Amino acid sequence: MLRIDLNCDMGEGFGAYRLGRDAELLDYVSSANIACGFHAGDPATMRSTVQLCVRKGVAIGAHPGLPDLQGFGRREIAITPAEAYELTLYQLGALQAIVHAEGGRLQHVKPHGALYHMAAKRHEIGAAIAAATASVSSALTLYGPPGSELLRAGAAAGLRTASEAFADRSYQRDGSLTPRDQAGALLDSAAEAAAQVELLVREGRVLSREGEYLSMRADTICIHGDGKHAVEFARDIRALLERGGIAVMPLGT
Amino acid sequence: MLRIDLNCDMGEGFGAYRLGRDAELLDYVSSANIACGFHAGDPATMRSTVQLCVRKGVAIGAHPGLPDLQGFGRREIAITPAEAYELTLYQLGALQAIVHAEGGRLQHVKPHGALYHMAAKRHEIGAAIAAATASVSSALTLYGPPGSELLRAGAAAGLRTASEAFADRSYQRDGSLTPRDQAGALLDSAAEAAAQVELLVREGRVLSREGEYLSMRADTICIHGDGKHAVEFARDIRALLERGGIAVMPLGT
Amino acid sequence: MLRIDLNCDMGEGFGAYRLGRDAELLDYVSSANIACGFHAGDPATMRSTVQLCVRKGVAIGAHPGLPDLQGFGRREIAITPAEAYELTLYQLGALQAIVHAEGGRLQHVKPHGALYHMAAKRHEIGAAIAAATASVSSALTLYGPPGSELLRAGAAAGLRTASEAFADRSYQRDGSLTPRDQAGALLDSAAEAAAQVELLVREGRVLSREGEYLSMRADTICIHGDGKHAVEFARDIRALLERGGIAVMPLGT
Amino acid sequence: MLRIDLNCDMGEGFGAYRLGRDAELLDYVSSANIACGFHAGDPATMRSTVQLCVRKGVAIGAHPGLPDLQGFGRREIAITPAEAYELTLYQLGALQAIVHAEGGRLQHVKPHGALYHMAAKRHEIGAAIAAATASVSSALTLYGPPGSELLRAGAAAGLRTASEAFADRSYQRDGSLTPRDQAGALLDSAAEAAAQVELLVREGRVLSREGEYLSMRADTICIHGDGKHAVEFARDIRALLERGGIAVMPLGT
Repeated sequence: MLRIDLNCDMGEGFGAYRLGRDAELLDYVSSANIACGFHAGDPATMRSTVQLCVRKGVAIGAHPGLPDLQGFGRREIAITPAEAYELTLYQLGALQAIVHAEGGRLQHVKPHGALYHMAAKRHEIGAAIAAATASVSSALTLYGPPGSELLRAGAAAGLRTASEAFADRSYQRDGSLTPRDQAGALLDSAAEAAAQVELLVREGRVLSREGEYLSMRADTICIHGDGKHAVEFARDIRALLERGGIAVMPLGT
Repeated sequence: MLRIDLNCDMGEGFGAYRLGRDAELLDYVSSANIACGFHAGDPATMRSTVQLCVRKGVAIGAHPGLPDLQGFGRREIAITPAEAYELTLYQLGALQAIVHAEGGRLQHVKPHGALYHMAAKRHEIGAAIAAATASVSSALTLYGPPGSELLRAGAAAGLRTASEAFADRSYQRDGSLTPRDQAGALLDSAAEAAAQVELLVREGRVLSREGEYLSMRADTICIHGDGKHAVEFARDIRALLERGGIAVMPLGT
Repeated sequence: MLRIDLNCDMGEGFGAYRLGRDAELLDYVSSANIACGFHAGDPATMRSTVQLCVRKGVAIGAHPGLPDLQGFGRREIAITPAEAYELTLYQLGALQAIVHAEGGRLQHVKPHGALYHMAAKRHEIGAAIAAATASVSSALTLYGPPGSELLRAGAAAGLRTASEAFADRSYQRDGSLTPRDQAGALLDSAAEAAAQVELLVREGRVLSREGEYLSMRADTICIHGDGKHAVEFARDIRALLERGGIAVMPLGT
Repeated sequence: MLRIDLNCDMGEGFGAYRLGRDAELLDYVSSANIACGFHAGDPATMRSTVQLCVRKGVAIGAHPGLPDLQGFGRREIAITPAEAYELTLYQLGALQAIVHAEGGRLQHVKPHGALYHMAAKRHEIGAAIAAATASVSSALTLYGPPGSELLRAGAAAGLRTASEAFADRSYQRDGSLTPRDQAGALLDSAAEAAAQVELLVREGRVLSREGEYLSMRADTICIHGDGKHAVEFARDIRALLERGGIAVMPLGT
């Protein structure tokens, strides 16, 4: 039977602030990327999010970010590779302690926002994050964009890697995501998104915005949790995939 | 042979800020309490401090604090026991990941500043910190004041505990420390401090400021690292103790 | 014609986080207490909130809080009076610069959360906040609970003060608010709240939960902006007051 | 009589952390750039630094920085021009309130670290900082590198500007500073530095590292406060300048 991992960013509140409908989304995804306190998240939010994941059987990942709560980790900061290593290691350790305390297991690591993009493009940053991940456990899986420096570095560090595609974003001819400020960047309907995912899973291809088919490996599919209809979207994609004979389950199962 | 553990707070810089002469102090103490990023410390400082400890064979402890860099963790914050548990667990995990990455081992936990005092006096806070410590590892030792709620909670949680006395602070008749704003709160000379430590180690007693002997258990002795002559003080105390036939070594050796 | 000021906390988002439906609430209140970046708020949120207030003709106040974003300024921190003075002055100045840049005028100061409560009960903290307010401008009005240390200190500092009552909270026999964890702490309906406000405005009295009338001066009435139905509540209270012949307008008009 | 302004960064401690020997340096410089709480500084440090400046008659400037205490404001963050405007305005207002409370007057604005470099090179960032400065007061002077976007934007905004040169850094043929990681980047002796300043003041020229004279306007000279011998350096430069008939005094006198 065909299968795919659906992942979603989770635990992105902070203190009194809530973001996203985590509890509902966890009914439809198979992996959660949990914010670790730097771009979002705090010890209490991390703990309650981990508890939800454990209860619902969703695989737990760390979602380390840049130390920029005000910018939600989306603004690039000119950190050194050593700083990337250290802040990733710190955040992974913090989450791992909470996961263990709740009887769970840390499955994967996916950097957040600007750190994700920096790690994808810059070898030294990708290598720093891979090294921090491997320092925590060689059993962790590193999530990143197809063909990225991050995944290359993860493989070189002996880690299992997962190539990530997006359910609701369109791709350009060169395999990059259509920038958010351009028309057609977002797929509007769950049906379109599910079709894109099915094509990725069945044929390892994606239809670019320009109408050409591209080869693309997708081990995991990212669903956004912050849109207005994120929950309904996740529910419908999962239902459509399952109807199409594709099981939604974590990588490691 | 008689023995005692000398511990000192370490890694209390932040970013561009340095505090204390850690590298030199580590030649004279047997245990380091490393700040974990909330009241002081940052991932880079934590890592370099851990590296120093590993290289010099000093036992590594976590020194979690309240989330108050501006107040250096010395101002009480009205946190709940759940918050105390969560912020301790977070900080322990962060440090532990760094310690493991550097090939070290986490030996103990000693809360910092206001958190130390809150944990000593309030059962629920002490229990929360003991629970967080036990969640990370049942092999950890909890440091705290003699007869405190913190040590009681640690023992109840099945942890090894270490009763802590101070080398350079005077005690009052009731066993409490003379407040810093009172005359005679600090012992001036290394000789006086070493004498106080020797009495604690040999006889389990301390001479109060009022001139009475009190029973006091001391498994570990705290040396302050932030005074102007902290390094010379630590060196002299250690030399005096060794001359007196008392070995300075970590608890677990 | 009778009149009353309705005030509401505003601008309590941070970065990507939104809190409350500020734009809508500003149609019904006459004064806004704007978070200044310590317990909530950031420069961008402060600016857009000020712009809204200027556009809608709502009087602008500063809502300084403790430096505790994670606790939303609701956890007491053991700060000194000097620290209370300094952090209030800093926040007032920051907001005032933004207000001036947007062509507005700062009308009042109301401390937030734990700082409000500390200033109400402790003379030195109340005096520190009054002094910081007077340092910024002697034309500012200080909001605080009836009979509080804060208002006493404000008057002593030569400031205009405004005694604040709550629209949707019940009072106990001694004039204090019924704690939130007790039954009947919150008035459920806009009608009840409007009735409480009317009694305060017309007769300077409030009916305690125990059924006794208490004298209470109310120059301004606080409306909460964070409930689910806060906007509807504010709209209905304002409509009921106006129907009853009480105009809603800022203090200084 | 010839004259020059000597400026120095001040108030760069935070909480328990101290940086630089501010009180001593203030005897030798004529202008202080005071950190405003984002890259360094806190309300208490700002206040005590302002008090020192007022007492010693040193002109007070704001030194706003990026929100990155851990990186001391030296790491570029990809902020938007709107964010640059808002965070500058916030910091200027905060400092101004403290300055007014202490009976002083804000004279100038000089962005710090990465914000200084971003404002020098990128027109939109320079314009944002100039706009924030002008919003606070049209009487403020903007400090920046000779020929920079920052100064151009300041002039366009109707502000007085001050072209800044460095006493102890060598210049390259193209007028840029020799990067710190290259040999000869720093002038070693106060005598050399004083000679460089004298040439700037008397002839509007600087001798590049390659041995060519360049035209360079210098209205103010930056002295670093963080070196080991910063105080002695400042004292000697001032003495040498005065012996050479050049008075050290603030711009506006």
